[in-house]
Amino acid sequence: MADFFEVVRSQRACRSFRDEDVPDELVERLLEAATYAPSAENRQPWVFVVVRDPGTRARIAELIRRAWAGGARAHEERRLQPAFFADVDRGAKSGIGSAPVLIVVCGDTSDTAERTLPSSIFPATQNLLLAATAVGLGSALTTLVTVFSQELAAELALPEHVKPVAVVPVGWPARPLGPPRRKPFAEKTHRDRYGRGW
Amino acid sequence: MADFFEVVRSQRACRSFRDEDVPDELVERLLEAATYAPSAENRQPWVFVVVRDPGTRARIAELIRRAWAGGARAHEERRLQPAFFADVDRGAKSGIGSAPVLIVVCGDTSDTAERTLPSSIFPATQNLLLAATAVGLGSALTTLVTVFSQELAAELALPEHVKPVAVVPVGWPARPLGPPRRKPFAEKTHRDRYGRGW
Repeated sequence: MADFFEVVRSQRACRSFRDEDVPDELVERLLEAATYAPSAENRQPWVFVVVRDPGTRARIAELIRRAWAGGARAHEERRLQPAFFADVDRGAKSGIGSAPVLIVVCGDTSDTAERTLPSSIFPATQNLLLAATAVGLGSALTTLVTVFSQELAAELALPEHVKPVAVVPVGWPARPLGPPRRKPFAEKTHRDRYGRGW
Repeated sequence: MADFFEVVRSQRACRSFRDEDVPDELVERLLEAATYAPSAENRQPWVFVVVRDPGTRARIAELIRRAWAGGARAHEERRLQPAFFADVDRGAKSGIGSAPVLIVVCGDTSDTAERTLPSSIFPATQNLLLAATAVGLGSALTTLVTVFSQELAAELALPEHVKPVAVVPVGWPARPLGPPRRKPFAEKTHRDRYGRGW
């Protein structure tokens, strides 16, 4: 049993994984948790492609590297603190691809408008990430590869109406993750009107 | 202590609330949980406006009613099962506005691109909804009112760079919510390539 608030407070992006497999039954617990999220009209437009095949994982990792080298890296190097940048840099170059499982989270547009997808897909993705935390797995929400949506869709044989939204690496953390760094909620909260603070 | 997976499996949209206040300390637990979500570059671009003022709540409820009557209602009446439609209809007309607390979840675009906001705001919103479930509160993810973003922003004195993303009513459920209805994850999951199933 994992305490809900403890799980929430422990979630942190993992971008470096041990070379050790993750059993299907744990992957299934993550996916099941994802499907309990809310979605517009309860349409449940999520689609998960669970990639274990080494060749497919390597090609997705290569897309991530290309997206990173093609502009994102230079952009983030200017914006992130050096230690944080180094972790993201290692993750994009090799860490994410080293996860034994990549879950590509997609949205089905056949019955849900594309503009409605984010509010229906990211809550499910968050459930998946929290569930990974609850069972001791590392994971991360990455959207970088969506700059190569077409290539990713081709790799996974996605039909036209299924759009990749995020890639979540899942595996055992190479190192303890440490606590997340967050600003207190009171700095982000206002009472009744913006500007009043909490 | 609330078991993580039990909370996940219990989450369900609540659109009808008892006439009973929610103490600040519970609202704070929800907001704190929200702030532990991941965000692009860990920018934490969420902004929460916690509306308790009856006049402000009434005006937000009126915006929801206008958005509902102005097209959404007719659209959803064609798309939803009758019992589900009746619940959403009651919620839009009066239920959401009857919650003692409306949390307007916004995204700060001053340091996060607007196209990146959904992946940085909806995970936090999902944490908030799960935390409400964990402490026995009812809540729902509603985005309908964003068709009147300008009016909502004016009502809350939001500056230009802060965009309303969702309105989450929070209160004590008028009735037990019952279990959520979801398709099994295996119907939504594929192994390595789309079309293979799980």
